[in-house]
Amino acid sequence: MSEMAKVASEIMAQVRSRRPLVHHITNFVVMNSTANITLCAGALPVMAHAKEEVAEMAGSADALVLNLGTLWPGQVESMLLAGHRANDRDVPIVMDPVGAGATQLRTDSARLLLDRLSIAVVRGNVAEMAVLVGREAMISGVESRNVGDDPASVARQFAREFGCVAAVTGAVDIVSDGTRVIRVANGHAMMSMVTGTGCMATSVVAAYAAVEEDYLSAAACGLAAYGLAGEIAAERAQGPGTFQVNLFDTLAGLSEEALLAGARIGEEK
Amino acid sequence: MSEMAKVASEIMAQVRSRRPLVHHITNFVVMNSTANITLCAGALPVMAHAKEEVAEMAGSADALVLNLGTLWPGQVESMLLAGHRANDRDVPIVMDPVGAGATQLRTDSARLLLDRLSIAVVRGNVAEMAVLVGREAMISGVESRNVGDDPASVARQFAREFGCVAAVTGAVDIVSDGTRVIRVANGHAMMSMVTGTGCMATSVVAAYAAVEEDYLSAAACGLAAYGLAGEIAAERAQGPGTFQVNLFDTLAGLSEEALLAGARIGEEK
Amino acid sequence: MSEMAKVASEIMAQVRSRRPLVHHITNFVVMNSTANITLCAGALPVMAHAKEEVAEMAGSADALVLNLGTLWPGQVESMLLAGHRANDRDVPIVMDPVGAGATQLRTDSARLLLDRLSIAVVRGNVAEMAVLVGREAMISGVESRNVGDDPASVARQFAREFGCVAAVTGAVDIVSDGTRVIRVANGHAMMSMVTGTGCMATSVVAAYAAVEEDYLSAAACGLAAYGLAGEIAAERAQGPGTFQVNLFDTLAGLSEEALLAGARIGEEK
Repeated sequence: MSEMAKVASEIMAQVRSRRPLVHHITNFVVMNSTANITLCAGALPVMAHAKEEVAEMAGSADALVLNLGTLWPGQVESMLLAGHRANDRDVPIVMDPVGAGATQLRTDSARLLLDRLSIAVVRGNVAEMAVLVGREAMISGVESRNVGDDPASVARQFAREFGCVAAVTGAVDIVSDGTRVIRVANGHAMMSMVTGTGCMATSVVAAYAAVEEDYLSAAACGLAAYGLAGEIAAERAQGPGTFQVNLFDTLAGLSEEALLAGARIGEEK
Repeated sequence: MSEMAKVASEIMAQVRSRRPLVHHITNFVVMNSTANITLCAGALPVMAHAKEEVAEMAGSADALVLNLGTLWPGQVESMLLAGHRANDRDVPIVMDPVGAGATQLRTDSARLLLDRLSIAVVRGNVAEMAVLVGREAMISGVESRNVGDDPASVARQFAREFGCVAAVTGAVDIVSDGTRVIRVANGHAMMSMVTGTGCMATSVVAAYAAVEEDYLSAAACGLAAYGLAGEIAAERAQGPGTFQVNLFDTLAGLSEEALLAGARIGEEK
Repeated sequence: MSEMAKVASEIMAQVRSRRPLVHHITNFVVMNSTANITLCAGALPVMAHAKEEVAEMAGSADALVLNLGTLWPGQVESMLLAGHRANDRDVPIVMDPVGAGATQLRTDSARLLLDRLSIAVVRGNVAEMAVLVGREAMISGVESRNVGDDPASVARQFAREFGCVAAVTGAVDIVSDGTRVIRVANGHAMMSMVTGTGCMATSVVAAYAAVEEDYLSAAACGLAAYGLAGEIAAERAQGPGTFQVNLFDTLAGLSEEALLAGARIGEEK
């Protein structure tokens, strides 16, 4: 049992007892599944994207998710309105640059948000994150294909360049604040067979960041809890359908003891 | 077996044999799950929100759901167009004021729809309903937190003020037409662990109102059938994921006998 | 084992090894389930509908799905932009005219797309397809009710009139290029109890058309694989909830041997 596993189980308990409200401005593919995973993490989700209400909704939220899948320009405007309110209140913003690199709209929008807002954590796959720091990457729709870059190097550069915590998820997740680099070795290959598993990771990270202002720890611990739930869910799954169902069950029922024993979070020296 | 349980099983049979079309103008989080629960209730769902087609779609529907989650001003315009057509045809409108009280846009839109349209049933949680009759309520996103008000008092006041049936759902659901107050004691705590379970209740109520013009009975019976399915689904659930899957299975397969035996609908004296 | 079953298993293997990117401009009800079924078929889904990015996204896709459920005029504009790019690149477009006949907007939009774009395959139910070739049909929302027309006659006429492959799905699926008529006898009645099963069929057809330029074969084989998965999924289902979950599992895990043995694809003489 590592020190970080202990932190993870403490944050999980905090989320469950405080039930933070996580305001999502997110894509239409995953609205339902990210709302459900937020509930399973112990937090309360609310989805609202109209520019007429986002600032007000962000005004009562404990974290704000900005997810760029199925983006359109009006939604970016809403993200800025909500984001400014969140920043004014020192509420963490967690961004998911879905498909950055796949289209100019997504790349530009991600950069605009990073430029205008103070963002606590950005979670993406290695290709999305690499593109945003100006590296070359192969992107197929919203999937990384082969990327030459080392994820840890991408995460560290991203964190320094944008002054945030960068969470680069993949077979092993890398979380960095630009100086420290933490590896989370939880997760399961079946996660790549279900749509929105990355977006769901982002929602869990936001729930954890809502109660823990050390965002590096919050992100790493959120990814560990979510990844561990994925591992356990995969054991009993017959395929991607039952896997997703089990993932909800498992995260909701994950005990602090199981997280203490199963979290594989290690810091790079 | 109560008289109302008998009515419930008769309405359920009517829905299944007549397969009413329930037009939804609804939020993006629950479009899929409300379409599916409508099918499981025995009715046919159709989702359409473009102002260019909503009146025409409402023109062939047997009930209209107006759900205010993820609202934007253009959608309110569509709701009015569809609602006027439904009113012209004496087709019941069932409204779900998701998040009323959480933002001014939602509160104002709910009141505007209640003012301009003749609405058959409004289903909401106690905070949403309390806010709309001008009471104070604690709302966190789309969840009621603690509300001092007695749900029966809120339901009665709501029904009188807006001239509709009010269905205030919670641990026990309260349905009132302003005079009579009916309690439905079906349901399960696990329903609060899945997103959209309130929205799904609204869809089932709409399916029942499509075939039964006594909207007080339709609402109470719809909530009883749905709540009973939730109870049975929870027995075999390992968590919120399997619970939702079981809920679909159970409502679709619910026998008239099971509903007769399990519906707990009682009138307040 | 038929010759066509062999073709089906070969196409399935091709999809799984090449992992084509299927760009969807689709309705909000089925965004999640069609993304998931695309993954289960072995392809990669991406959903994007903003007019600012659709052409660019279509520029890297291997197939384009245009699905007309929850349509609005701005989305038709996006469909044209993406469609022109797909046509320029000889990438197949698969259209799903959800609710054609139910409203003028949907009927007109389907015809506009058929007129302006070169579409590889159109998949719809018999009522939707009949309406688009000018026949009378009973449509209730997005469901065919009784239609007098013979599906094979509708499919043949549709294919000739619009110069595409027409896939009319129902108890038996009919696929025609205007000359040849292929019947696919896979599928299960439980499919009509889950929302979006038609839309999911369209996504699988698009994944198959992405790797097989004989679109008649691609459509028939995609429907056979999907229908067979439905049959197997139904065996272990307790209702529509478990059925949908099993459908994902089964399609993802379907072996080439099972498809060879189970595909029931026959050509009309």
